[in-house]
Amino acid sequence: MDCHDAIFTRRSCRAFRSQPVEPDKIKRMLEAALYAPSPANKQPWEFIVTSNPKYHAQIKAAADATKQILAVRSGWKWLPVFDISFLLQAPTLIVAIGDPSKGGAEQFLDDPSLGYLEACSTAVQNLMLSAHAQGLGTLWFSLFEKADVRKIFGIVETKDPIGVICVGYPERTDTIARARKGIADKVTFLD
Amino acid sequence: MDCHDAIFTRRSCRAFRSQPVEPDKIKRMLEAALYAPSPANKQPWEFIVTSNPKYHAQIKAAADATKQILAVRSGWKWLPVFDISFLLQAPTLIVAIGDPSKGGAEQFLDDPSLGYLEACSTAVQNLMLSAHAQGLGTLWFSLFEKADVRKIFGIVETKDPIGVICVGYPERTDTIARARKGIADKVTFLD
Repeated sequence: MDCHDAIFTRRSCRAFRSQPVEPDKIKRMLEAALYAPSPANKQPWEFIVTSNPKYHAQIKAAADATKQILAVRSGWKWLPVFDISFLLQAPTLIVAIGDPSKGGAEQFLDDPSLGYLEACSTAVQNLMLSAHAQGLGTLWFSLFEKADVRKIFGIVETKDPIGVICVGYPERTDTIARARKGIADKVTFLD
Repeated sequence: MDCHDAIFTRRSCRAFRSQPVEPDKIKRMLEAALYAPSPANKQPWEFIVTSNPKYHAQIKAAADATKQILAVRSGWKWLPVFDISFLLQAPTLIVAIGDPSKGGAEQFLDDPSLGYLEACSTAVQNLMLSAHAQGLGTLWFSLFEKADVRKIFGIVETKDPIGVICVGYPERTDTIARARKGIADKVTFLD
């Protein structure tokens, strides 16, 4: 798939078919993630991949409880009815984990930036674009307490689980992109 | 360019030709950035684009001073000799700016994640892949104090300048990728 087609036609997928994902496609996605840039080439990422329904059920249960709390705190009316069954449906989950100790020189600034988080996010985008280019859908799910995901997947306290990426064949491939603000709203050209 | 080719052959570019970048290519890059995913579709990003050498000189001067301080703090021997002339060479600079107030529901977690920063980082990766697919080189530069970049570009205190992206035609297109750790080192498969 053409690079720009991948960028413009990727969608966040919230309904998956049960068909398993071929291991070679997962491998290709992971290789794409590992080719992201990172400050000082520290590669501050790790991934856990599972297709075992036990983990899907555990993260779904934790996220359901979290979602109810967030619904109260936020007052956002869509949250209590937001269906997160995609956590059970998606045949494969990929947990993306950052290592805050692997920063570049930006960690020494007076006002440091989180290079590890920026790098991990570019890796996740590579992974999601690769998935889409291979006919797969993804969702970067982040409505979880990090403590829950650490416990479920055996991740040490010093590492940062930044997302549970749901992966599978999308139920629909004709989803319209959510509306985006355009260049006129989002970009300033300075002469 | 094929999506995977773009992902695997993109390089961080640190030497640019003086040839200006066509406005249509910049526009395409920005459109690609705007198609990134974001929590609750909040689109927490803005961009400033300039090809005015005045700004290049100002950010270079600020970054040179910062670099010397970081060299001392880090003790990293490559930092004092790290040549950042690419800030002057690159015909166009794109400042990527995040809005921390535009988070999704993850902002209400006990241990919140920085959805705005994750989203902005995926937008920058889209922008850099689009550039590469159009024959351009980019560098996500982040060795600056945010206060300096806010002052130079007139960015309000509440917004987060996450990167100054250098854009131009690369001096060389045969750069070898920096070594990456592979799947065996970075991925755990849980049965």
